[in-house]
Amino acid sequence: MSDLPHGRIHNFSAGPAALPLEVLEELPPGLMNLGGGVGILEMSHRGATFDAILRRAEALMKKLLGLPDDYEVLFLQGGASLQFLMLPMNLLQGGSADYLGTGAWASKAVKEAAHSGKPRLAWDGASEGYRRCPTSWDADPDAVYTHFTSNNTIAGTQYATVPDVAGRLVCDASSDILCRAWDWKRCDVIYAGAQKNLGPSGVTIVVLSPWAQERARAVQKQVPTQLSYSNHIDKDGLLNTPNSWGVWVAERVLCWIERQGLEAVEAANQRKADTLYALLDGSDFFRPHADVASRSLMNVTWRLADPALEPVMVQESLAAGLSGLKGHRSVGGLRASIYNAVTQDAVDALVDFLRHFEKTHG
Amino acid sequence: MSDLPHGRIHNFSAGPAALPLEVLEELPPGLMNLGGGVGILEMSHRGATFDAILRRAEALMKKLLGLPDDYEVLFLQGGASLQFLMLPMNLLQGGSADYLGTGAWASKAVKEAAHSGKPRLAWDGASEGYRRCPTSWDADPDAVYTHFTSNNTIAGTQYATVPDVAGRLVCDASSDILCRAWDWKRCDVIYAGAQKNLGPSGVTIVVLSPWAQERARAVQKQVPTQLSYSNHIDKDGLLNTPNSWGVWVAERVLCWIERQGLEAVEAANQRKADTLYALLDGSDFFRPHADVASRSLMNVTWRLADPALEPVMVQESLAAGLSGLKGHRSVGGLRASIYNAVTQDAVDALVDFLRHFEKTHG
Repeated sequence: MSDLPHGRIHNFSAGPAALPLEVLEELPPGLMNLGGGVGILEMSHRGATFDAILRRAEALMKKLLGLPDDYEVLFLQGGASLQFLMLPMNLLQGGSADYLGTGAWASKAVKEAAHSGKPRLAWDGASEGYRRCPTSWDADPDAVYTHFTSNNTIAGTQYATVPDVAGRLVCDASSDILCRAWDWKRCDVIYAGAQKNLGPSGVTIVVLSPWAQERARAVQKQVPTQLSYSNHIDKDGLLNTPNSWGVWVAERVLCWIERQGLEAVEAANQRKADTLYALLDGSDFFRPHADVASRSLMNVTWRLADPALEPVMVQESLAAGLSGLKGHRSVGGLRASIYNAVTQDAVDALVDFLRHFEKTHG
Repeated sequence: MSDLPHGRIHNFSAGPAALPLEVLEELPPGLMNLGGGVGILEMSHRGATFDAILRRAEALMKKLLGLPDDYEVLFLQGGASLQFLMLPMNLLQGGSADYLGTGAWASKAVKEAAHSGKPRLAWDGASEGYRRCPTSWDADPDAVYTHFTSNNTIAGTQYATVPDVAGRLVCDASSDILCRAWDWKRCDVIYAGAQKNLGPSGVTIVVLSPWAQERARAVQKQVPTQLSYSNHIDKDGLLNTPNSWGVWVAERVLCWIERQGLEAVEAANQRKADTLYALLDGSDFFRPHADVASRSLMNVTWRLADPALEPVMVQESLAAGLSGLKGHRSVGGLRASIYNAVTQDAVDALVDFLRHFEKTHG
């Protein structure tokens, strides 16, 4: 069926998601011997080889996010889900916080923050089916921070610009980090599971501004050892054994982004999204889910005018060598995740399939 | 220098540590395409391929540990270090617990348990340089559990038999899990970072008896979402995205152990350890660190009669294609970690080197 290398097919999975083939092909030799006769899985995380990988990954992350050197970058474990707890545990300190309710992930985040203070949903898109990201809301002037989810995988929405907030901003950027150049300096904390745009699951990136670092310092002694940002910072990200393989793969992906330039990555993402939205907008057969102003570059969601055809479309897409297109049950329909590593060729193949499907079933 | 495949050298690292070459060679094709055209790093953790891997790993773990089916096996993130917190958070519930102080890891574990109850060191080997594991101690009859570290990487000690306790036992088995057949049914919780005997860093195995499962259930609503054992159990180990690559590699290692049989693995480990201890005992040039009755099958520690020669020995070992032999700073001297994946050939090469070193420097 597939004429892609290694019998691969076009992968539109929401995550863990496609990795660049160029990066995948770099990995096997390092499994056996990443220099000095020892493979990446087998080397001490305290040795020079792994240390160089970790430091390069930290530096590239700051550079690509456009952040000054006094930000800290950590590669932790536990997923963004553990950050729902760690972030407020370190920063909230009994205070209030505004959470922008753009979907299931934001709902989980606000729930977990209640262990450490008084968070609330300052805006809630549930009644609108989470079709958009807010541009205004009822802000609490005393909020320690405002939390937003830059991209929402389930509904397929994304903030076009960094939310306009007087106070501190913290962001769950799990599903769109480094998909575009953005004004990340406006955020004091950026966290992201790596398994969408940055590599394998099991690595969580946490970026902390000087303000966030200082605030976490105040509770260092009270917070459990592994959950304290300050402890991880004090040990240069090696408080305990990290997911060293995962950090290495993320570093390879960061180098891949750096080689192209973030602007080129953004342009490619914009072109992929434009290709797909143009098709969906071009016929009543398709019903795009997200509001136009909040459309995601990463997760494109749509229903069909005839919902009975949706499972047929999913079924036939698999046979056409396109995987991962079934929409999340809370939205229904279909979803194409077109993260950084998904190629224009994959999107073109998807568009061809959708056109053909409309012709035969429309 | 090296005449091993892929230019590899003999790796005695304390962890992350050597993996079986046979397993490493299975991994590259799965990176590209683990069936269905999608690689292991890129597939949904909720799909059938990954689900089969996870269930096989759980079942093999129970089988190899000799545990009945009503135990639960979880593959979590955060390392054994996060279990130092999670275990008491789920099980201690304000009660007291006995911790057996056999080294740095036990000390970290008892410290973290203080967030959830009244743990204490029921035995403390610090004054003896942690040269042995205790056979008796001042037990608290009200202790919810007694915690022990089955193998201590730093001092090179290991319990010969499961500690004899009237109450519940919990074990940090990070550095010797599945090195031998053992009476694991005596333990209610077994946890282990995977990066020594089971595979890559970034995966933590947690095994829970029916008693432990039930006890955790009582605090499910109070404990933060990601730190609740019950939540992970209720979602069949997929509460959030796991380190799917790491689980796959661990599953491959478990299959490798299963193919040989645990008895054969134990016999090989015993032979490797005997080879090395016989050499160390055979000359006053070497000073083995651990008490004979507590000697570890996994980490062999020694000083030299002339400590000034220790850095020379480390230096020359690297030139001889032997890596990871520098002892932990708290013990000094040298340490050879000879986990399951380290071959008899590697140990023989080490013994040859040590003999030669004694001849030229002794």
